[in-house]
Amino acid sequence: MAAALYSPNHCCSSPSSLAAAAAYSNSNSSSIGFHKNIIIPFSVKRKVLGSVVLQSNCGGGHLSNAAILMQDGALATKMAATGEAPPKNLKEGLLSVPPPVERKAPIDSDVNEGKSTVSITVVGASGDLAKKKIFPALFALYYEGCLPEHFTIFGYARSKMTDAELRTMVSKTLTCRIDKRENCGEKMEQFLERCFYHSGQYDSQQNFSELDKKLKEHEAGKVSNRLFYLSIPPNIFVNAVKCASLSASAANGWTRVIVEKPFGRDSESSAALTTALKQYLQEDQIFRIDHYLGKELVENLSVLRFSNLIFEPLWSRQYIRNVQLIFSEDFGTEGRGGYFDHYGIIRDIMQNHLLQILALFAMETPVSLDAEDIRNEKVKVLRSMRPIRVDDVVVGQYKNHTKGDVSYPGYTDDKTVPKDSLTPTFAAAALFIDNARWDGVPFLMKAGKALHDKRAEIRVQFRHVPGNLYNRNVGTGLDRATNELVIRVQPDEAIYLKINNKVPGLGMRLDRSNLNLLYKARYSKEIPDAYERLLLDAIEGERRLFIRSDELDAAWALFTPVLKELEDKKIIPEYYPYGSRGPVGVHYLAARYNVKWGDLGVDE
Amino acid sequence: MAAALYSPNHCCSSPSSLAAAAAYSNSNSSSIGFHKNIIIPFSVKRKVLGSVVLQSNCGGGHLSNAAILMQDGALATKMAATGEAPPKNLKEGLLSVPPPVERKAPIDSDVNEGKSTVSITVVGASGDLAKKKIFPALFALYYEGCLPEHFTIFGYARSKMTDAELRTMVSKTLTCRIDKRENCGEKMEQFLERCFYHSGQYDSQQNFSELDKKLKEHEAGKVSNRLFYLSIPPNIFVNAVKCASLSASAANGWTRVIVEKPFGRDSESSAALTTALKQYLQEDQIFRIDHYLGKELVENLSVLRFSNLIFEPLWSRQYIRNVQLIFSEDFGTEGRGGYFDHYGIIRDIMQNHLLQILALFAMETPVSLDAEDIRNEKVKVLRSMRPIRVDDVVVGQYKNHTKGDVSYPGYTDDKTVPKDSLTPTFAAAALFIDNARWDGVPFLMKAGKALHDKRAEIRVQFRHVPGNLYNRNVGTGLDRATNELVIRVQPDEAIYLKINNKVPGLGMRLDRSNLNLLYKARYSKEIPDAYERLLLDAIEGERRLFIRSDELDAAWALFTPVLKELEDKKIIPEYYPYGSRGPVGVHYLAARYNVKWGDLGVDE
Repeated sequence: MAAALYSPNHCCSSPSSLAAAAAYSNSNSSSIGFHKNIIIPFSVKRKVLGSVVLQSNCGGGHLSNAAILMQDGALATKMAATGEAPPKNLKEGLLSVPPPVERKAPIDSDVNEGKSTVSITVVGASGDLAKKKIFPALFALYYEGCLPEHFTIFGYARSKMTDAELRTMVSKTLTCRIDKRENCGEKMEQFLERCFYHSGQYDSQQNFSELDKKLKEHEAGKVSNRLFYLSIPPNIFVNAVKCASLSASAANGWTRVIVEKPFGRDSESSAALTTALKQYLQEDQIFRIDHYLGKELVENLSVLRFSNLIFEPLWSRQYIRNVQLIFSEDFGTEGRGGYFDHYGIIRDIMQNHLLQILALFAMETPVSLDAEDIRNEKVKVLRSMRPIRVDDVVVGQYKNHTKGDVSYPGYTDDKTVPKDSLTPTFAAAALFIDNARWDGVPFLMKAGKALHDKRAEIRVQFRHVPGNLYNRNVGTGLDRATNELVIRVQPDEAIYLKINNKVPGLGMRLDRSNLNLLYKARYSKEIPDAYERLLLDAIEGERRLFIRSDELDAAWALFTPVLKELEDKKIIPEYYPYGSRGPVGVHYLAARYNVKWGDLGVDE
Repeated sequence: MAAALYSPNHCCSSPSSLAAAAAYSNSNSSSIGFHKNIIIPFSVKRKVLGSVVLQSNCGGGHLSNAAILMQDGALATKMAATGEAPPKNLKEGLLSVPPPVERKAPIDSDVNEGKSTVSITVVGASGDLAKKKIFPALFALYYEGCLPEHFTIFGYARSKMTDAELRTMVSKTLTCRIDKRENCGEKMEQFLERCFYHSGQYDSQQNFSELDKKLKEHEAGKVSNRLFYLSIPPNIFVNAVKCASLSASAANGWTRVIVEKPFGRDSESSAALTTALKQYLQEDQIFRIDHYLGKELVENLSVLRFSNLIFEPLWSRQYIRNVQLIFSEDFGTEGRGGYFDHYGIIRDIMQNHLLQILALFAMETPVSLDAEDIRNEKVKVLRSMRPIRVDDVVVGQYKNHTKGDVSYPGYTDDKTVPKDSLTPTFAAAALFIDNARWDGVPFLMKAGKALHDKRAEIRVQFRHVPGNLYNRNVGTGLDRATNELVIRVQPDEAIYLKINNKVPGLGMRLDRSNLNLLYKARYSKEIPDAYERLLLDAIEGERRLFIRSDELDAAWALFTPVLKELEDKKIIPEYYPYGSRGPVGVHYLAARYNVKWGDLGVDE
């Protein structure tokens, strides 16, 4: 069905790309200093990590199709190397927000020549996220050959643990995602041998100094690069950053810190956090992770839009009627609502994950795919957004529900949640972008816990056909006969386009069928976890998928007023049964803007 | 996967449609005269044939989805009945070619109330087409309840045969296409009982008078409508039409004649044929069949284009780089080349089937879906076409080929073909439409016999993405990274859209995947044969899929000069082996216009 298009047999470009890549590869290893002033496109760096440029395992070598690496970036880089000005430098002057450019290329090159090391410290190593996501992602990167030659992983937490105990703990959650048969046990052993543990307080410079000492031993005099992954509660963020920065920064390489949400609770607390972090770190050292941006289909959003001509004319108010961003979980807080209750679904999902996707979806074409160009465009979207009216927000909270013999607890039945909590576990909102492209197009968001299904998707509903010859086939169901593009982020990643089609047969009946791309049917390779992509990006200094502080500010500026109003007025959420489709208020909200939620069909 | 969208549960329009349909249905049976001056939309007529308006078996009742009839037309008709002017009448005055309007509605209504009959005479009943296509199609229509209550089928040919012998002959090719289990034998019996035979010469008025007498007996005084299907060689067309018209026309209903290609060999002979036919028939009695227009996906072409907003902006030179119309058969003339040799592939396939599809594809939006509106637009396309240069045509002829133990004969090995024949069994051409929408867009046609596969498809190649951010991923394979819409007419009907997609994984590699609609995966019902649709249309007086004489003239005007030049200059065809992909000349032709044939991939 689908073509293995870029196989060497068919692709005319492969010989020249190979040559260019080889040329680049050579210059790379022989004259490092040469690159000092060249901004290397992100795609190049990744490949340089592998030993064979065009056939690096890292980045898809396991794919069943005999496809060759197309985004080699080598051509672009070669052009720069032969005297043409790098396009990005030329254009930077035009940008409203000057991107912080870190001259990391030589260091990255060092990494690949065995002269430098990367130490990854997972702060909060005994936590759930570390066990379930971070260590497995690091192993997957190792397994695929994406980690540099010299690397060390340290777990850091308060509990006492030996290296062996950490390894035992970590080993329980490692899986051989790609291919269970091929050297998996062996690879695991090798990986675990490079994992260590250091016990310490999160606010103790002393303890971090001890860590520093151990790191130095492992670095053995090489150029040292250090990545700290802060998988700890927000109230100890700043202290940990302070200690890591003051007592365990890399001496001669880079030091980067990955921080997880929450980035504050509102504009003020977020700004305070940023200010505090910036006492110890430069902006370009802070990697604010939003793991939704690492999801395969979110990554693909820009590819879909910018590399397919067919979508180019469609991507505006002229053709798009509304956009829906839908997130649902089919479970509640289940006894772990303490943290959640302090934030609620709007802060937990909307203000970050959904808003980030919205910004990516709606942004103007960036100057290039470089991180700063993309983030500049995202900020512009966020800053163009109309303030959210409290009337345009629906909040809900799930209540208990009994179905047959099974009883599902309500949110306030959770022992970690105050009985009188008004914290929304569900919210929907209508948002608008007041710019030329999107004026008047409703962007509807919906997010909730304890709903009837688990999904995350983007639905793009197109306008009616003007002067539709087939209107009489459609009758008053006009809304249902419009095209819809669905990007299903999870589960079962898919892209499909609903089109009107003639039902085969003698009559002239129309129905809506899907032009379909179901990932599991097309791609045999398992899709990497978002954390793998993001960890690798952080190691490589690729900031495209991380949130810049001005983006964060703009996101909070949008949501803070409405959050305050909801809380000040103690707006009572609309209660909905556990396992239901959520409060009916969402339909009235949608109806106000002449929208119908697209996720209502039985087989949507 | 695909939504059963218009099921009663979801479609808000169903109650009102049902009501409207019921209203119409009632008025229809109680006040026939009322409809005298109303042009009934084509879709209505079809349904009126069934007993239940909205659930007529005819037109898709067997579909597995619980879809209801959407193109009920009932609303439109009701509007007309309640005093609003029928849209078509309003607009007719604007058309450049005044459509011949036949006031058939009352008669059609009669048909459905048991007051009239339809007699279908298959002239040339013992021929291959009659046995393989026409009788089976008539049975399928009967099986699905699409034929009127009172109908009679007559076979007419020169050979002596009894009714019983005809029935035996016919019964051999009947199949229960839809559902082998349900009353099939019984239905067949009933059908065969209504089949009769009359032996006669094709040029004998006497013999046709005898037929007339028999027909009258069956018509038993009811309003009589008569359809003659001329399945006979072209040299006896006119005589048969003359005899049928003068001696066997319907006394008080309509008389229609379906004629099959060839409609002449060039402009002159075609015009002569038309003139001759028009001595005996009005234009609106002549149904020139092009069975390709009855194919499901060709029918769907207009639906796809005009009922899906997403295609609206794309359908022009601004976005479309080229269009390819491809037809191939995997067998040669196989001892039956006598007729073919007189015509060649250009007349046999290109000048009619492919050109008709091209016209449908490229036409401007018609005023309505009515036959004359559509045919007016098609004529405009044909008349806007640039004369074809002989340099823009490649002709080929297959030669013998031995593959392993099997030897395949060359075209001139066919005993019915002259040894020195230069008749092309393969041709390709570059065509251009010199209008605002299509200026400069090459329309490439390719048709051939004895090729490596059997297919008919339309391929629409879109332009490159302007300022493509992902150009560096594509390298010099830019041509391969453009979008392509493929409408596969046969076999395995499908629509798919090739898009660029990110290959899942950590890298940023792109490939081309398909957004796919494979009919057999989506629709469980077998697709009706083109002849069923066309026969039913002819019975119902629906001319949309038949070729009007000015269309035919325009088609010949386009091809006649180049055919004459090829023949006058005795251009020697490029020989290609039986079972190959055809002459390589097609690639040079395509290259001249910067086109690459889309059907070259292994999995295309």
